[in-house]
Amino acid sequence: MTAPSNIFDCSKDETLASLGEQTVLKRLQKFCSQEVIGDDGAAIFWRSPPQPNGINSQDAGDYSGNHSGDYLVVTTDVLVDGVHFSDRTTPAHSVGWRGAAANLSDLAAMGAEPVGLTVGLALPGSTQWRWIEGLYQGLKDCGDSYDAPIIGGDLCRSSVATLSITALGRAGRSHLIQRSALQPGDYLIATGIHGASRAGLELLLNPETGKNLPEIQRKSWIRAHQYPRPRLDWLPLLKMAEREIAGMDSSDGLGDAVVQLARVSGCGVELWGDSLPIPKGLVGWVGLETGREWTLYGGEDFELSMGMPEEVIKELNCNFPISYYVIGRAVMEKGVKLVEKEGGRAIANLSLDQGFQHFS
Amino acid sequence: MTAPSNIFDCSKDETLASLGEQTVLKRLQKFCSQEVIGDDGAAIFWRSPPQPNGINSQDAGDYSGNHSGDYLVVTTDVLVDGVHFSDRTTPAHSVGWRGAAANLSDLAAMGAEPVGLTVGLALPGSTQWRWIEGLYQGLKDCGDSYDAPIIGGDLCRSSVATLSITALGRAGRSHLIQRSALQPGDYLIATGIHGASRAGLELLLNPETGKNLPEIQRKSWIRAHQYPRPRLDWLPLLKMAEREIAGMDSSDGLGDAVVQLARVSGCGVELWGDSLPIPKGLVGWVGLETGREWTLYGGEDFELSMGMPEEVIKELNCNFPISYYVIGRAVMEKGVKLVEKEGGRAIANLSLDQGFQHFS
Repeated sequence: MTAPSNIFDCSKDETLASLGEQTVLKRLQKFCSQEVIGDDGAAIFWRSPPQPNGINSQDAGDYSGNHSGDYLVVTTDVLVDGVHFSDRTTPAHSVGWRGAAANLSDLAAMGAEPVGLTVGLALPGSTQWRWIEGLYQGLKDCGDSYDAPIIGGDLCRSSVATLSITALGRAGRSHLIQRSALQPGDYLIATGIHGASRAGLELLLNPETGKNLPEIQRKSWIRAHQYPRPRLDWLPLLKMAEREIAGMDSSDGLGDAVVQLARVSGCGVELWGDSLPIPKGLVGWVGLETGREWTLYGGEDFELSMGMPEEVIKELNCNFPISYYVIGRAVMEKGVKLVEKEGGRAIANLSLDQGFQHFS
Repeated sequence: MTAPSNIFDCSKDETLASLGEQTVLKRLQKFCSQEVIGDDGAAIFWRSPPQPNGINSQDAGDYSGNHSGDYLVVTTDVLVDGVHFSDRTTPAHSVGWRGAAANLSDLAAMGAEPVGLTVGLALPGSTQWRWIEGLYQGLKDCGDSYDAPIIGGDLCRSSVATLSITALGRAGRSHLIQRSALQPGDYLIATGIHGASRAGLELLLNPETGKNLPEIQRKSWIRAHQYPRPRLDWLPLLKMAEREIAGMDSSDGLGDAVVQLARVSGCGVELWGDSLPIPKGLVGWVGLETGREWTLYGGEDFELSMGMPEEVIKELNCNFPISYYVIGRAVMEKGVKLVEKEGGRAIANLSLDQGFQHFS
């Protein structure tokens, strides 16, 4: 039995609050298909149904094993008013955009091209049509940017606005990007800066704190929070790699992503403090300590965190004009350490507990 | 502008409550892919992604047109505590079963074989683990019965328990069953009795009203409410038909389904009062008037309502040992009429407004 840990617990029995979201999700895995490859989403081998004329358009296969055929990739996010969005920080259009972006980011982290989005909506009766319209416009605008049309949904009433967005994608290989593929010696890379979304949230919640910041900086961070961009632009590059790439998206924070990659892969990581992808101007505004914290644990940047060997990085450099940050290196010794610089003094240990967890 | 129509409306602007769920859903269609074939779910043509070696496992195609290839079929339902389920009527296991069954019924109504289910859950922190476990066991038990494993999901906290279930399926043809295919002269058939789920609900809400009913009757109706069975068993039969079949599932009531089939197809229907699929013993318990009402508008029976020409029915009779009810016939003149019997006196007009609508 896990001891009750917060005020939601109002019984002797185990509850969602006493167990925590992660423990419950782990327990629920026993109900899920064991043949599904789960990382940021689920990938299942696409079997064609028997055709009326008895001919299959594709060879039948079983779900298990590593097929080179088509995979249907599925990912679901639930967003709740007051937890994942609010009128103070996110207009309806941004709620829709972020909802779509979060799921498309999971597709990117699975190496899957978008097929479409479905939207399950539960809304209070008092919700204005303009808000619903704005939400859908945001979903559509983000979806349209990444070839992910809205293909279905449902709507009903509830006292709390709740969105459940499912993104569907397809991948030619199941294992294009995998959490467990990190190997000692791999370089850790981040596809962009981290912490800008957290900075934008701060500016939205406490606008006065940013009154001395340049207008362009404020706008850029608020935009990072309200309109994140899933990194589907990396897919063509990753398809070129001959080895499996270790990776996941950094929606729960860069620190969380690196710790998970290391843990699942059974190795460790040294993150280089002088190479963290801290947004320009952030340290000047909030100081180094908070700047690092937001970069590692701010969350919702929707970039990719990946581990890859030197030769893949060289290939990237030669063939693609895309920028990224080399932020550390995988090592044999387990655990994730923040060191001052490559080969430098250890500053801190990173763990999942410190991560940005919505419901702890 | 639609006039405000109920107490939820607390502003001059249009709200979900003032417009109603159906109007809002209709307006939201403009945001959705126009290339998707929408009935009970969405069907989209499955295009293979380019393979790393440059070879596609399937010919590429565009989304439009009537392909004979593979279709991914998607359907989503949102269920809210106090609206779609409650502790009084549905234990956790039944909530899960019903959630899965409702979506699998939509797949059946699209002629699609199940691929899997995803579950987006928002639950109060005080929700007991036992309830969550029961819910998932119910989802899994129903899913396992129809080859639809749970392949993904998300969990977060909210003050109102909300489930968003998405079912994925695949179909070899896009138009196996279509709402708009009803033609004058077609016979209307129902795949089973209707009203048993409503009767079961009554027994759960007001047990004393059923105290004189035989035990076996009570149990059977309660079971119909808590453990409906989607009619995926009809798929092999429908695949044999050479013509498109008009049909949809009757989750919102048999009357609602027939009215929608007639309206979308631009014809009318005469329903035969003496042939309605009223559960045995129901009229004796609640009288003819209420018995008919529950059969036509009780809802949640999750049967299929279909229109088909005489030759398809003959084919069915010859080749398949499956029972069904012939309940009426499509006619040229628009509107749906309940007549005493085939060729008999009209008793009532049926319309969508009278239908079982969760949120009116």
